[in-house]
Amino acid sequence: MSNVISFYDIPSKTGKPWSGNTWKARYALNYKGIPYKTVWVEYPDIEAAAKQIGAAPTGKRPDGTPLYTCPMIHDPSTNTAVSESLAIAEYLDRQYPDTPRLLPPGTTALQHAFMTVFQPLGGPALQFALPATHRYLTPASEGYFRFHREKAFGKIMETWTPTGPERDVEWAKVKASFNTLDGWLQAGKADGPFFGGKIPCFSDFAVGARLIWYKLIFGEDGEKWKDILTWNEGRWAAYTESLKPYEAVL
Amino acid sequence: MSNVISFYDIPSKTGKPWSGNTWKARYALNYKGIPYKTVWVEYPDIEAAAKQIGAAPTGKRPDGTPLYTCPMIHDPSTNTAVSESLAIAEYLDRQYPDTPRLLPPGTTALQHAFMTVFQPLGGPALQFALPATHRYLTPASEGYFRFHREKAFGKIMETWTPTGPERDVEWAKVKASFNTLDGWLQAGKADGPFFGGKIPCFSDFAVGARLIWYKLIFGEDGEKWKDILTWNEGRWAAYTESLKPYEAVL
Repeated sequence: MSNVISFYDIPSKTGKPWSGNTWKARYALNYKGIPYKTVWVEYPDIEAAAKQIGAAPTGKRPDGTPLYTCPMIHDPSTNTAVSESLAIAEYLDRQYPDTPRLLPPGTTALQHAFMTVFQPLGGPALQFALPATHRYLTPASEGYFRFHREKAFGKIMETWTPTGPERDVEWAKVKASFNTLDGWLQAGKADGPFFGGKIPCFSDFAVGARLIWYKLIFGEDGEKWKDILTWNEGRWAAYTESLKPYEAVL
Repeated sequence: MSNVISFYDIPSKTGKPWSGNTWKARYALNYKGIPYKTVWVEYPDIEAAAKQIGAAPTGKRPDGTPLYTCPMIHDPSTNTAVSESLAIAEYLDRQYPDTPRLLPPGTTALQHAFMTVFQPLGGPALQFALPATHRYLTPASEGYFRFHREKAFGKIMETWTPTGPERDVEWAKVKASFNTLDGWLQAGKADGPFFGGKIPCFSDFAVGARLIWYKLIFGEDGEKWKDILTWNEGRWAAYTESLKPYEAVL
């Protein structure tokens, strides 16, 4: 095992990381400048990898059995495994106090509240994003991803994305979710462009992770991504640009 | 007119302020130690008072006409009127930069997001709280309050509060809303007992205002308030206690 943090991420056909969940922790590690090494793990292998390093489950499956997810990390310097992005951020802030804070004092409870309201804001986009995601997975992950997502949504993935007039109605809901985020950032504009003010905090990396997920799966030249870049007077173009320094894949 | 800020609040039969909305701004003024004088204004007189000082409406009535609400302030030093608690907090932070911040840099956008998720958390308690509130209003406000609330809810106020087994089901939803708040504060406990960490911020005064409203209308010795004080290992008893230094009525 390496002597740096092992960071467990899910591969894609492109060879690039793509998950809107794992990117939160990757941004966090890069922002803090903590050395790490990516361990690529296919969906069907996440549970075994988690058990091997001792990472806790992050939820339950519909049948009540424990659910293991990426991101997760193993830090050899403390022999500690941590799963779930916010828990990873808290661990890194605590264990590496000389690095920039993801949860500055006086923002932890607020950022937890933010994540509670941010999570469902991603709902309307899932019908567009998940079927697109599916196309990027390697054969080893594809069947697993389809099986569990289709079980949860109750219909085959190819029928999820609306077309025709319904497509416009549903896409407008995605835009509305960004309007909500924009409203909060507008309100804080005297602080700076980020939820963290002049500098990003964990909540910004959660927003950035969602954006980079859309960018990858809708395609940099795709209509949907180009549409997003025009919203809220180009805020999301500037926002993604400003997080680029933290997009290394180590 | 006085040479200190005029703070417009709604009176009650008890002679004490009671509104869960105006308390947010009262806490804010007290916390910052900014001199002010309460101007008591009955519900039917809010609109005229707002227009007199030039305070903007804060929303629209169902029929589309502008809605004027308390709290509002008029600051004679700048001849500025501000309505709505968060806007008042932002004005006070900006205008009185040497006083403790309600929205410390790097928390403004997060606190706006917090208020978006905090507001509907108060929903389940309204069926218990609004009819109780009604009993505290002066005759000048009571008819107005009843008319507009009953129009919005579609039934007479005396039938709102559930009884029997339904009461327990609905009261459990109130408890669940406090569990959510407690969860966020638990997550931030290393920062301190407040959403602001070691010291309160605007979001804490919003929580405190909701609590002090319940305390007044359910009664300090009432079953419901005593119930709340036992929840989340006594967090709300400690929390209300810690905000007592900011409860002056000037």
